[in-house]
Amino acid sequence: MLPRGRPRALGAVTLLLLLLLLVGFFLFDGLRAAATLDGDLYGSRNRSAASLQPLLPPKCELLHVAIVCAGYNSSREVITLVKSLLFYRKNPLHLHLVTDAIARNILETLFRTWMVPAVVIRFYDAEELKPLISWIPNKHYSGLYGLMKLVLPSILPLSLARVIVLDTDVTFSSDIAELWALFAHFSDKQVVGLVENQSDWYLGNLWKNHRPWPALGRGFNTGVILLWLDRLRQTGWEQMWKLIAKQELLTLMATSLADQDVFNAVIKEHPELVHPLPCVWNVQLSDHTLAERCYLEAADLKVIHWNSPKKLRVKNKHAEFFRNLHLTFLGYDGKLLRRELFGCPNQLPPGAEQLQQALAQLDEEEPCFEFRQQQLSVHRVHITFLPHQPPPPRPHDVTLVAQLSMDRLQMLEALCRHWPGPMSLALYLTDAEAQQFLHFVETSPVLSARKDVAYHIVYREGPLYPVNQLRNVALAQALTPYVFLSDIDFLPAYSLYDYLRASIEQLELGSQRKAALVVPAFETLHYRLSFPNSKAELLTLLDAGSLYTFRYHEWPQGHAPTDYARWREAKAPYHVQWAADYEPYVVVPRDCPRYDPRFVGFGWNKVAHIIELDAQEYELLVLPEAFSIHLPHAPSLDISRFRSSPTYRHCLQTLKEEFHQDLSRRYGAAALKYLTALQQSQSRA
Amino acid sequence: MLPRGRPRALGAVTLLLLLLLLVGFFLFDGLRAAATLDGDLYGSRNRSAASLQPLLPPKCELLHVAIVCAGYNSSREVITLVKSLLFYRKNPLHLHLVTDAIARNILETLFRTWMVPAVVIRFYDAEELKPLISWIPNKHYSGLYGLMKLVLPSILPLSLARVIVLDTDVTFSSDIAELWALFAHFSDKQVVGLVENQSDWYLGNLWKNHRPWPALGRGFNTGVILLWLDRLRQTGWEQMWKLIAKQELLTLMATSLADQDVFNAVIKEHPELVHPLPCVWNVQLSDHTLAERCYLEAADLKVIHWNSPKKLRVKNKHAEFFRNLHLTFLGYDGKLLRRELFGCPNQLPPGAEQLQQALAQLDEEEPCFEFRQQQLSVHRVHITFLPHQPPPPRPHDVTLVAQLSMDRLQMLEALCRHWPGPMSLALYLTDAEAQQFLHFVETSPVLSARKDVAYHIVYREGPLYPVNQLRNVALAQALTPYVFLSDIDFLPAYSLYDYLRASIEQLELGSQRKAALVVPAFETLHYRLSFPNSKAELLTLLDAGSLYTFRYHEWPQGHAPTDYARWREAKAPYHVQWAADYEPYVVVPRDCPRYDPRFVGFGWNKVAHIIELDAQEYELLVLPEAFSIHLPHAPSLDISRFRSSPTYRHCLQTLKEEFHQDLSRRYGAAALKYLTALQQSQSRA
Repeated sequence: MLPRGRPRALGAVTLLLLLLLLVGFFLFDGLRAAATLDGDLYGSRNRSAASLQPLLPPKCELLHVAIVCAGYNSSREVITLVKSLLFYRKNPLHLHLVTDAIARNILETLFRTWMVPAVVIRFYDAEELKPLISWIPNKHYSGLYGLMKLVLPSILPLSLARVIVLDTDVTFSSDIAELWALFAHFSDKQVVGLVENQSDWYLGNLWKNHRPWPALGRGFNTGVILLWLDRLRQTGWEQMWKLIAKQELLTLMATSLADQDVFNAVIKEHPELVHPLPCVWNVQLSDHTLAERCYLEAADLKVIHWNSPKKLRVKNKHAEFFRNLHLTFLGYDGKLLRRELFGCPNQLPPGAEQLQQALAQLDEEEPCFEFRQQQLSVHRVHITFLPHQPPPPRPHDVTLVAQLSMDRLQMLEALCRHWPGPMSLALYLTDAEAQQFLHFVETSPVLSARKDVAYHIVYREGPLYPVNQLRNVALAQALTPYVFLSDIDFLPAYSLYDYLRASIEQLELGSQRKAALVVPAFETLHYRLSFPNSKAELLTLLDAGSLYTFRYHEWPQGHAPTDYARWREAKAPYHVQWAADYEPYVVVPRDCPRYDPRFVGFGWNKVAHIIELDAQEYELLVLPEAFSIHLPHAPSLDISRFRSSPTYRHCLQTLKEEFHQDLSRRYGAAALKYLTALQQSQSRA
Repeated sequence: MLPRGRPRALGAVTLLLLLLLLVGFFLFDGLRAAATLDGDLYGSRNRSAASLQPLLPPKCELLHVAIVCAGYNSSREVITLVKSLLFYRKNPLHLHLVTDAIARNILETLFRTWMVPAVVIRFYDAEELKPLISWIPNKHYSGLYGLMKLVLPSILPLSLARVIVLDTDVTFSSDIAELWALFAHFSDKQVVGLVENQSDWYLGNLWKNHRPWPALGRGFNTGVILLWLDRLRQTGWEQMWKLIAKQELLTLMATSLADQDVFNAVIKEHPELVHPLPCVWNVQLSDHTLAERCYLEAADLKVIHWNSPKKLRVKNKHAEFFRNLHLTFLGYDGKLLRRELFGCPNQLPPGAEQLQQALAQLDEEEPCFEFRQQQLSVHRVHITFLPHQPPPPRPHDVTLVAQLSMDRLQMLEALCRHWPGPMSLALYLTDAEAQQFLHFVETSPVLSARKDVAYHIVYREGPLYPVNQLRNVALAQALTPYVFLSDIDFLPAYSLYDYLRASIEQLELGSQRKAALVVPAFETLHYRLSFPNSKAELLTLLDAGSLYTFRYHEWPQGHAPTDYARWREAKAPYHVQWAADYEPYVVVPRDCPRYDPRFVGFGWNKVAHIIELDAQEYELLVLPEAFSIHLPHAPSLDISRFRSSPTYRHCLQTLKEEFHQDLSRRYGAAALKYLTALQQSQSRA
């Protein structure tokens, strides 16, 4: 195999080989060198460097990522980061999430319902970490959580050798496997990979008496970290950083940039520990960033870091460009990321396989296919999308429960004026609409002042409105002992919240009495209504024809059992009996039966719930001073389809029958009356 | 620099170098080899191959792409392809679009309003190419257009040496520069780069008497082509393919797969011309595809090809995965692709620089900033989003013009029932909503039956509804001599379309008479209305209090000059005079003044237009039998903001004043009456 021949030929070959070696040497050297802002490393050479990426990890290798995340806003933020990660990733991922109770609650629900293949999630309780770092005074806006990255080597599993640590405010625009591959460039001594800081902060010349923590040159930014965990543990990282931090705190009093100050102080003393990463892996968009020197020459940005407290509103002449990258994932439909990795085993999250099988068994030609499919849809759920202060525990408190989509947003302000108590609202939105909703709340003084309204986003999927699934999400998140199960286009009497709490107390519902308090429903057909301030005013409007009892014209049986005539005169709560098609708005204990999720789209969704209450022997008690009024709106798309499509009506009928079969199964002969009532009502129709 | 030392050391070095050479040789060989389905080329070696990409073109090098696109549906399709291209591209692009008149009209408007930096568009008239290929009988669903790729070397500019040719039904999931880089792998003789066909079609054994065109093995797929144009011209491509096609047509009668059959026949005779490309660059999802052999091993898919007539509905066990990639770009907000390429000169499309300057001059702190910004927004516009048959030219024909957003979609079916004539509707939607809209029309028998309704999508941008910009888009696309300027929540009298045409004829409006025919407006406050079949029935409902004149309660001055009392009795058209705040719905010649785009959001948008008509001395003629009825709906977000925000009302006032200043400038003293009227009306208020 070796080339043979005359000496001259041998010499030529040797020369050729040498050239090859030199070229190789030069290129690899380029990759190994530290990226500094003042050098020309990831500038003009960037493209050739990119094309000489080190070998990527094998496609099924599990990559580990650790993120610290606390509170409502960071929980929203981290989801955008994760979307960008998932969009470009080609490897299975294991996310190690250090969270407070709020973030854990949100993210556990989100990831369980997101069902992304080949993603493992593990939570770590931030509370337990606090004692490890709370002795460090920190002036940075991230607070204690900002310091937690320092103790990751102690709390992550010993079996974990390497991990990528990310701040929640970074966005990926490339495959994280490329970043992971840079571990291969670490020398034996190097334990932490970091990008140079893209500001002059650590040079200490930003203002008079500016005294930053010590750092090597401009220092390093810790928004993106490659941590070689087992080496860190071997080098006694825990002792090392604590010792150095304590030393510096003697003169510096507190950290300004949280963990980053400590990392830099350690690196200043032990420069051999750091492996500098190319600047494109952490393009920092802080206010006075020098990042331009990095990206103006690079065609390929890998990770963007919104490390200004202003985040997306940061002033930067290229801000629009970076914002667009970020907005891409902010509005990205997360369900599109439920894609498998071809050829890697065991990717499916819990429940996904059964779901796939159930979906596969559906018959696309069956007339009610859309209904079946919608019933099986697992919607991503983001509970408490916005900051929320749960109401203090009070024994007779009531939460208003309702659901809506984008076209009813304008109801929220009026609802807030009518209902001063806690609310739990499920919103059926796309990812992009969720952002519009966020903007809507932020710009509304009425809404942004209310912290006792919890908004739960259920992400859209499928053609039919999953009304009862939405109700169940909102109901499950109500935190008071009682709930008022309402609809979004109803405005309650101004006094209703106080009146309900007083009634609950008077009726002694607390003592496990199974009762459903009926709030009589009315409707106006006028755009503008001078809302009645009392029952007397309401009755006057009713007599004047400005108000009607709800659906008086179209569907009187829905509320007939409430007995409006009796209500007119009533001074005390009175019992009423269930009858076919009854669907009053009721106040019930929070642990009431859930809505039947099979009812999607329009029709019978509340009727079935009231049957369930009756079957479980809830008393139905009408409250004499309670009322709520439905405002006019254009018919929803679902109601239009119901009216125009015989198939739609046929499918609803099928659902009703199946519901009754289940009812018989669960309640036996006692459920017979519902079936009889249904048949009678149908023979009348 | 050369290593010196004893012979043994030299030997060791030589050995090392040889190893290096061997490794290099092996890897490069891997890249050069043809990708065949039966080999193991882009399977397990894929990842190392990917990391040995050839050098990418310099970041500012212009890459050329040619696409043939004809008709409404392909025009939608090509936009999704272009979005995927733009999402991953890092180079300036030049798109060479071979289009029919329909696609050109759509795409010219789209790209002009899209304003993507660093994209050059050039159109080529497909009509002129037809004679070059119409002699080839073709059975493929793409028709004549499917054959046009054959003549690209003749029609593209001589200065163009290389081009990538794409079918409209491909989706990119990688940077096209990586594909461009593969030109560097062509040998001197190779002129066309293609991926092997991923079906057994050309093996000729799919069914009895299956006689495909000749091909090398499985043949090649022409959905993605690297064309080395100047070499093709040198090799006499035009003569070559014609000769071979004619030969084959002697026995085969017609092409089955359009250009692809001819390309394969040429390659069969001249295999030296083809450079086989890795299969990941054209993953073919036809019905019986063998593509799985390619992608199951690849971590990195580059281009997906929906080459089944079923497109996204193709049956494939991984269809969901591929669909998600495609849906990503289908719903992707195109405005996010308006991002510059850092460090490349002269990227801005026409008008973009002035726009940037105007935007930069706005003061973010100014209270009406949102209005100013919204006025400057250039919305992407996709005219005739769905297939459309323009009405035959008729001298008195009228198009109904209106605009809407997603929350009014359910009006469309009723509108179609009330207005049997042509309509031009502007829809204000996000990219994702446009897809929902498409689905809505396709599943509505009423809407899908109507081909004389043109839908124009104006893509959402900014917080305020650009009502007059929308009206202008719809107005500009009306093709009849007259237009009925209506609003989406009005239903015209069933007879209105016929009655208007008759009136126009009777009134002899054709002879350049400047007249605006007023259609009196009414409203109902009821959900359901038994729509009056005649003026007599309408008057009965009016007397019964089921109908009112439009905004009788809230804004009577908007329609007072119509003089409803006179209309009741009128048997013939009558003249009315303009008065302050008059905003009737009118029928006018298509060349009427445009709406003033400064009015965004709620308020005064129609009032200003009627002033403009009056200033240009249009007669106002009320038609005695015409009417249209407004249906109730929930207040829009804009009207809610108007009611609740003093700033909003202040800004609207500012816009009014600026409008009057412009009016004085254009019409001089004659415009004084409008200002006086405005002041009087305000002093009354």
